[in-house]
Amino acid sequence: MGLWTWLLFIYLILICFVDDVLSGRTSSFRRSEWPSTDIPLDSEAFVVPGGYNTPQQVHITQGDYDGKAVIISWVTESETGTSEVLYGTEEHKYEHIAQGTTTNYTFYNYKSGFIHHCLVDGLKYNTKYHYKIGTGASAREFWFQTPPEIDPDVPYVFGVIGDLGQTFNSLSTLEHYMETGGQTVLFVGDLSYADRYEYNDGVRWDSWGRLVEKSAAYQPWIWTAGNHEIEYRPDLGEISTFKPYLHRYVTPYVSSKSSSPLWYAVRRASAHIIVLSSYSPFVKYTPQWFWLREELKRVNREKTPWLIVLMHVPLYNSNEAHYMEGEAMRDVFESWFVHYKVDIVFAGHVHAYERSYRVSNMNYNITSGSRHPVPDKSAPVYIIVGDGGNQEGLAVRFSDLQPDYSAFREASYGHSTLELKNRTHAFYHWNRNNDGKHVLTDHIVFRNQYWASNTRRRRLKKHRKFPN
Amino acid sequence: MGLWTWLLFIYLILICFVDDVLSGRTSSFRRSEWPSTDIPLDSEAFVVPGGYNTPQQVHITQGDYDGKAVIISWVTESETGTSEVLYGTEEHKYEHIAQGTTTNYTFYNYKSGFIHHCLVDGLKYNTKYHYKIGTGASAREFWFQTPPEIDPDVPYVFGVIGDLGQTFNSLSTLEHYMETGGQTVLFVGDLSYADRYEYNDGVRWDSWGRLVEKSAAYQPWIWTAGNHEIEYRPDLGEISTFKPYLHRYVTPYVSSKSSSPLWYAVRRASAHIIVLSSYSPFVKYTPQWFWLREELKRVNREKTPWLIVLMHVPLYNSNEAHYMEGEAMRDVFESWFVHYKVDIVFAGHVHAYERSYRVSNMNYNITSGSRHPVPDKSAPVYIIVGDGGNQEGLAVRFSDLQPDYSAFREASYGHSTLELKNRTHAFYHWNRNNDGKHVLTDHIVFRNQYWASNTRRRRLKKHRKFPN
Repeated sequence: MGLWTWLLFIYLILICFVDDVLSGRTSSFRRSEWPSTDIPLDSEAFVVPGGYNTPQQVHITQGDYDGKAVIISWVTESETGTSEVLYGTEEHKYEHIAQGTTTNYTFYNYKSGFIHHCLVDGLKYNTKYHYKIGTGASAREFWFQTPPEIDPDVPYVFGVIGDLGQTFNSLSTLEHYMETGGQTVLFVGDLSYADRYEYNDGVRWDSWGRLVEKSAAYQPWIWTAGNHEIEYRPDLGEISTFKPYLHRYVTPYVSSKSSSPLWYAVRRASAHIIVLSSYSPFVKYTPQWFWLREELKRVNREKTPWLIVLMHVPLYNSNEAHYMEGEAMRDVFESWFVHYKVDIVFAGHVHAYERSYRVSNMNYNITSGSRHPVPDKSAPVYIIVGDGGNQEGLAVRFSDLQPDYSAFREASYGHSTLELKNRTHAFYHWNRNNDGKHVLTDHIVFRNQYWASNTRRRRLKKHRKFPN
Repeated sequence: MGLWTWLLFIYLILICFVDDVLSGRTSSFRRSEWPSTDIPLDSEAFVVPGGYNTPQQVHITQGDYDGKAVIISWVTESETGTSEVLYGTEEHKYEHIAQGTTTNYTFYNYKSGFIHHCLVDGLKYNTKYHYKIGTGASAREFWFQTPPEIDPDVPYVFGVIGDLGQTFNSLSTLEHYMETGGQTVLFVGDLSYADRYEYNDGVRWDSWGRLVEKSAAYQPWIWTAGNHEIEYRPDLGEISTFKPYLHRYVTPYVSSKSSSPLWYAVRRASAHIIVLSSYSPFVKYTPQWFWLREELKRVNREKTPWLIVLMHVPLYNSNEAHYMEGEAMRDVFESWFVHYKVDIVFAGHVHAYERSYRVSNMNYNITSGSRHPVPDKSAPVYIIVGDGGNQEGLAVRFSDLQPDYSAFREASYGHSTLELKNRTHAFYHWNRNNDGKHVLTDHIVFRNQYWASNTRRRRLKKHRKFPN
């Protein structure tokens, strides 16, 4: 080849490289969406189970730090009823019994049903359990699968859903997620959007509980609080924040030494999952700040290589909706995420999908010149999955110029799945809801931030348990 | 004069101008300070009043929005006793009686005395009231002066104290303040530093209450919470934040439609004073955010021209101590302060003194180039008065290069006074504690941000009530 041919060849390689590594993509896809209105209350999606005082709105979440417990929650409407859970490893044969507790609340003129929470602990790993709640003809039976024992190479599949609400788009997202084989949902906040109704109508909390039961009764949903959970209504005399959410959705926060159900951590299979609260105090010297500082020290990447953070308000977002609302928390926590090499930070809040490159923006100093996000191998990938499908509709206005830090963005409804394969690799997909079908739209292979670094790779070669 | 002489002349004028307007001053003053250790408990500064169950730790604060009420608080140690306050306008003759309430708390192994709070309302403006608490031989008598009626031109003198603690330096600051003729203290957080003792020893809350009584029983102290009030000690089973502080120091938060005693507003003479909580949620959608948005709309500069904000963590600070800790709140609230032309933001936290020029730093955008604080006529002056004199000592390490936004800084103990003269002018002083004397060290004349603007000045000329 002549000199010019060589130069052209090198130019083409560079173009491909730069395009692949540095420029993000703004999807031009626009689908014919369903209207962003909630499903009517009398729809089958919200059907109340028949019988007297029958348990409804059944949902489970992880009940301890390591996955050997679940908390089972449900609501009875007519009377308190029992808070007992019968459970065992064989169908219809329940060797064990656990005793739960009951609570309820009022919100202005709404009075909740009897909300039951029952911790079922001392479970075996990797085991299918059947459980039964309610009594007599009104009893209902469900099952769940415990996770495998904590192990750096055990595969596991998480779904990621945010800002779900209760429209036909929400239902579509939920049903698509259920087709994926996901084993646990990481939910990044904004559940029912009941606060969009007059007096924050609790009836829409109840209908949402029934909507998601078909998934949430059978596998744990890991809860994060969003702004629609705050429900601060001084005009109605409701000044305690997160009141309906905290009564209905409990978390195993004590197991991770947290002092609030709004921030906590769980370990599951090969993942260490940290849940933060965007709307609780987080600056230096506050309880959440102290807790996170300690929890990050407890992370053991030799046991749980995948370090995942959930929060509601994204730290990187190039949509006009909620632009830079996460700056306050980014200012406080970003350097820790980089220091501890967090793999992925999932957030919601913005009703669209966006994935960042590995970037950080920590050199800003009030008197220095540094202020742009820069590529940073130790930084997490930031992913916004605020596109569950609620009644507020899509956030369609991205900034005209896609910033350098943004890898892919699209204003459609959908959800993500994260398939942890072993300590070094994970497959990640974002699935768009396309006219009733779920369509794999964004996908990347994650290399673990701890085990895939140079130092670790050397260790890895010597590691006997490492699979192919 | 020849051309060169003229040029030299212009050059000299420019130099002077630039020096005066643009460069700040870092004071080189270093005084022989007392050691930063607390006054021993058996010192006279903390003396317990004689007699059985005698009221101690007496302090008052404004009790309503406009200054026609006070809340009187005190502690009895042996038994509950009465929570009544006798009061009236003549000495030893008490025409009125008000009924208070009693509370107490435990903190790990400390058990508080009986803490009394009594609202005394319906007072006349500009009137000296005498009051009596306790019974029989143990009764004690004090007095206070109500403020003048809300009026844009009425003079009033505020003291500003922060991070006080209970060392000999603290006592010096307190006594110097009491010499100034200040009528009300704006306290910017960090009161007793009891949390520096083993188990956050509440005994040091009691001694602090006795230390400041000689001022706080006679004039209102407007309270702001600092980090030393948080007292989050999960290791001791104490997970509710601000527990001792909230029991001991109450605020009239309901009068300003706040839902928390940690953030609120009062109007006094010609000032509208807004108190914020650095360690409570403040991002968009949180109660404090909603409240501040509404409170700023309620500010009426025609009635209260002086808009003053108190908080603990400074938004502008060029000391290495707590450098940029206020960035999260600055990100959320700075644009509001500029929009509403706040006159002064007082903060503490950094154990030094610093005053800024009028600057703002709001053009930062994650993808733009703007990021420096710039001169901004609508911005507040930010003043740090974290130099009350607590046991942690001084923050002596300022950044080597004084940033453009910093006008004056010095690492000494002291306090400030703000003398509101009329709707357009106020005199401001920072008084250093110099070997037992108070020395006027930094002083400026404030022109009101509302009335001294061009538009307002035109109105002002027509205003009949305007004094000389």
